[in-house]
Amino acid sequence: MEREANRPVPLHQNRPLITLTTDFGTASPYLAAMKGVILTRCPQANLVDLTHEIPPQDITHAAYYLREAMPWFPTGSIHVVVIDPGVGTSRLPLCVTINDQHILCPDNGLWTLIETKSAPVVHHMSNQKHHLPQISNTFHGRDVFAPGAAALANGIPPDVLGPRLDQWQRLAWPAYRLEQNMLHGEVIFIDRFGNLITNIPAESLSHGTDSVQIGTQSITRFVKTYGLAQPGELITLISSNGYLEIAEVNGNAARRLNVSRGQSVVVVTSSRRYQ
Amino acid sequence: MEREANRPVPLHQNRPLITLTTDFGTASPYLAAMKGVILTRCPQANLVDLTHEIPPQDITHAAYYLREAMPWFPTGSIHVVVIDPGVGTSRLPLCVTINDQHILCPDNGLWTLIETKSAPVVHHMSNQKHHLPQISNTFHGRDVFAPGAAALANGIPPDVLGPRLDQWQRLAWPAYRLEQNMLHGEVIFIDRFGNLITNIPAESLSHGTDSVQIGTQSITRFVKTYGLAQPGELITLISSNGYLEIAEVNGNAARRLNVSRGQSVVVVTSSRRYQ
Amino acid sequence: MEREANRPVPLHQNRPLITLTTDFGTASPYLAAMKGVILTRCPQANLVDLTHEIPPQDITHAAYYLREAMPWFPTGSIHVVVIDPGVGTSRLPLCVTINDQHILCPDNGLWTLIETKSAPVVHHMSNQKHHLPQISNTFHGRDVFAPGAAALANGIPPDVLGPRLDQWQRLAWPAYRLEQNMLHGEVIFIDRFGNLITNIPAESLSHGTDSVQIGTQSITRFVKTYGLAQPGELITLISSNGYLEIAEVNGNAARRLNVSRGQSVVVVTSSRRYQ
Repeated sequence: MEREANRPVPLHQNRPLITLTTDFGTASPYLAAMKGVILTRCPQANLVDLTHEIPPQDITHAAYYLREAMPWFPTGSIHVVVIDPGVGTSRLPLCVTINDQHILCPDNGLWTLIETKSAPVVHHMSNQKHHLPQISNTFHGRDVFAPGAAALANGIPPDVLGPRLDQWQRLAWPAYRLEQNMLHGEVIFIDRFGNLITNIPAESLSHGTDSVQIGTQSITRFVKTYGLAQPGELITLISSNGYLEIAEVNGNAARRLNVSRGQSVVVVTSSRRYQ
Repeated sequence: MEREANRPVPLHQNRPLITLTTDFGTASPYLAAMKGVILTRCPQANLVDLTHEIPPQDITHAAYYLREAMPWFPTGSIHVVVIDPGVGTSRLPLCVTINDQHILCPDNGLWTLIETKSAPVVHHMSNQKHHLPQISNTFHGRDVFAPGAAALANGIPPDVLGPRLDQWQRLAWPAYRLEQNMLHGEVIFIDRFGNLITNIPAESLSHGTDSVQIGTQSITRFVKTYGLAQPGELITLISSNGYLEIAEVNGNAARRLNVSRGQSVVVVTSSRRYQ
Repeated sequence: MEREANRPVPLHQNRPLITLTTDFGTASPYLAAMKGVILTRCPQANLVDLTHEIPPQDITHAAYYLREAMPWFPTGSIHVVVIDPGVGTSRLPLCVTINDQHILCPDNGLWTLIETKSAPVVHHMSNQKHHLPQISNTFHGRDVFAPGAAALANGIPPDVLGPRLDQWQRLAWPAYRLEQNMLHGEVIFIDRFGNLITNIPAESLSHGTDSVQIGTQSITRFVKTYGLAQPGELITLISSNGYLEIAEVNGNAARRLNVSRGQSVVVVTSSRRYQ
């Protein structure tokens, strides 16, 4: 799916956009503390919650989430992303600039699945002038990333936050593979509806498909959208981000098929095209 | 309950209010994508989350939710409401203007329980100039409704979004009925506290009540508010939106009585008034 | 942990900050109604959600939450906090001014664990001019606290909201005690990761610790942060707010140890210092 061209928005605008993505949930006061720090240091920030329901310490989930979410945001956006099982160890706090947006996050690879138009520019946020005066060992979201976001929003350029890096942790996008007439992929993401998003791109299916096999189930119904099949039916379709998706109409395919992320999916291809 | 008169707020103000209501949850990136599209096209929008916890595909729940929420919002508010099991089928995307507010939503009736002061004005959002350049089959929240909201917030009038319609899907508010000395109604909504809100309006109870029957339980304790009875007690009262409510003080009536939406409720009336 | 000095922000600024903390969840329309009332009366408010996941009617949880969250917010912040099992009874609605911030909440003690720099100033929000025209018996979040917050944000001083009070409900912070070489405390808070935060401050541990006993478990591993121990290991550390914390690395200590709030924790001290 081709993304809309981002319109230019000056970085140092009247209401700089800062988004928040964490695995904190909201019942604990951690998120509130981060918001307070940002709004104390940059009262004019436009603070927008993305999610706080990343499963605890699930860097892979967060990486997929960011890959899907980031392309839709405007130039100059500042994204604070704190899924940080390594907090307080030697892992570095990063300011990553890609696609004219900034991501502030720990160096655990969570930003590295995002498709980039040019080489990322990565800084190590080591400048203590833009940390809180005292740094805890266990909460850099509040002590390092929140004040760093406020600094960027106030017009401080990334290279003031710390020196440039040329190495960082990377995650790998699991590749699918073609063997004879079979595409082998896996479930990458499961949404709230229990829809199963795979790593098999729509383009690879352009020569048509006979059936999709997941566990012991073989699905032969291909549709353009959910409402074109009957409630309760298992279907495959192209997801809104351009991948093969398995769904139960008005139901929950993940529950019905007892599937979790990483489950193998095999497509038997043929000459028939997707409807 | 009489609502506060809304104060006039110009539609094309400095910070147009856009609210978001979905059944997406927040763990998936769908909501983030919608926020990104809106803020790219209308950076000055005041983006306010209402809820993303509408139960999946539960149009009735969403309709009740909107009926209660909308009257409290100011003139010119733009509400994006995406509970959309029919996405990508022939169901139309609507821009509904009622009570000087706008609702952008699929045509499945979810706005039709809102009490209106005058006839609704409904437009079919068919103008592709205000869609994303490419439209997926499964995510019109991002591709149609988000850019439509940004357009309205930028001052585009609803009739530019598409032609006017005079037909749409409707939901029916379940009527209660009086038979001899008994009012027959049902549970319409269950809140986080397990309180059971019924469709029986306070006015219908003005001649007094002897007992409220739900399942095998008969409740005879009527109070003005929770704290006037003992913890653990089953009570009836008038809800904050003016209907008969059944509650367990400091407890959860839905769990205790094992009740779900649609459960029948019978009020045996008498000459005694509510305290 | 020493807090950052708050920077002065004028109360009656362009975008007054109003935060919302409730036990409503978001699936019910209560929160939306409050947001609508505030934005109708103060369209320029910067409305920020803190949490709506306080466990239902859990005043103690809310009090701990506020104690941790509030110090990070700027001067002039207006915090609406509605955990209100006593709504509609004789309990009073309060406007509390402490540390140059305002808290609007029912008089049930939920603000009284916050550490204050000077004496709190407490007003009874009795002025009906700043309530909604009609007041329900069960939802003062919408009818009293929301319009009160809008009034403050519009520059109305607290003493216009009602008369000053010199008495209010108080909660007690559970004290820890030293007996011979043992510190007796308890679990105060459990976060989303299942980490157990106790009421035993870091300072009391400065003479070193041999072991921490919780239930039948004795924990002897002390680290500075999670990532310095192995996944699955039970550890103790100093929490980000300066208290003894018990955690399972990349796991959930609360679930593993089957612990809930109030669980007794005993520290056997020695001359060994925390690493």
